[in-house]
Amino acid sequence: MDLREALYTTRAMRRVKPDPVPVEVQARLLDAAVRAPSGGNAQGWRFLLVDDKDQIAEIGALYAECIDMLWATVYKDKAAYAESSDDPEAKQFKKIMRSVTWAQENFATYPLLLFAFDQFDASGGSIFPAVWSAMLSARADGVGSSLTSVLAFKNDETLSVLGVPADEGWRMSCCVPFGYPTGTWAVAARRPVHEVSYRNTWGTPVGFEIDEPLWP
Amino acid sequence: MDLREALYTTRAMRRVKPDPVPVEVQARLLDAAVRAPSGGNAQGWRFLLVDDKDQIAEIGALYAECIDMLWATVYKDKAAYAESSDDPEAKQFKKIMRSVTWAQENFATYPLLLFAFDQFDASGGSIFPAVWSAMLSARADGVGSSLTSVLAFKNDETLSVLGVPADEGWRMSCCVPFGYPTGTWAVAARRPVHEVSYRNTWGTPVGFEIDEPLWP
Repeated sequence: MDLREALYTTRAMRRVKPDPVPVEVQARLLDAAVRAPSGGNAQGWRFLLVDDKDQIAEIGALYAECIDMLWATVYKDKAAYAESSDDPEAKQFKKIMRSVTWAQENFATYPLLLFAFDQFDASGGSIFPAVWSAMLSARADGVGSSLTSVLAFKNDETLSVLGVPADEGWRMSCCVPFGYPTGTWAVAARRPVHEVSYRNTWGTPVGFEIDEPLWP
Repeated sequence: MDLREALYTTRAMRRVKPDPVPVEVQARLLDAAVRAPSGGNAQGWRFLLVDDKDQIAEIGALYAECIDMLWATVYKDKAAYAESSDDPEAKQFKKIMRSVTWAQENFATYPLLLFAFDQFDASGGSIFPAVWSAMLSARADGVGSSLTSVLAFKNDETLSVLGVPADEGWRMSCCVPFGYPTGTWAVAARRPVHEVSYRNTWGTPVGFEIDEPLWP
């Protein structure tokens, strides 16, 4: 697959089928992950694939609780705004909420989860390139994914389900469910580059405007 | 460019030429960045391209101090070990130290820096996929890059050079110098997947071994 096609069309794919993800696809996504750079090339990472149905259901129960906590805290205002407005931003957030609710209700049907752990990586800059490479690799194999850090609300319970030792300094960075999408791949709508980018000093225009995605 | 070629050969490229990075390449790397997913699709990011030579020199002076601090603190033991041993890991770390020393001495010659900022992203999971997409996009254009978070040691001084407002909650995630490499692209050696991956529970073998990179 062409690099730009992967970069432009790897969106959060929460609605996926229960069909298993072949072991060859799993191997390719992990081998892509470990090729990513990390600070001092320390490779202070561990990857945990979960395909045991009972464990996925247990994680799913925690995920459902965490999402409820998310709507009640971090996204409280945004969720209320989404309910009370019909402007494009509100509509878009309602769409995300419906998709996340689908994940809450169907988590146990996910065929594969990837958990990434890092050690002494305060910024996340030494683990998320690897995670994103895994997601891009899966995309090239037609497998969708979505990254969530929400299980941090139930960190200890999640680590317990996964048998992660408490005393070795491993931090759960995220959970990424994988599966074959029920929908289609498409370029995501985003705020254009010139609205979120500057040149040399904060607030100075970047020097070009990009009104349409540069791919395809 | 093929996705896997990009994923496997985008290594930290610190030694680059002073030749400018064309504005088309800059536009493509930023447009790739904003296509990445972010939590709740919040796109809570800002990207700052720096090509002003005086500012790059100022940042370079801060970078040099930060690297000295890094060797004296986080990497103190590793640096001492690298000096005192000839085993493969020590050699590899010495190689990184030489490359970083090159960056310290030549920072002012970098033609382009990208700073990424995020807002309310505790884990880094909503900014580093975007940053890594920018680096992969540049790779497809033959432009090398290296990600560093070391300027965090001089966070306030760096934000001051860049004119970042102190009161809006923007956090500097990283700095990525870009440029045309003096060396060649290659697949990085890494600990193999089966040494850093588990299945279902921590410590359980992942179920396959990958002795050679799966690309090319």
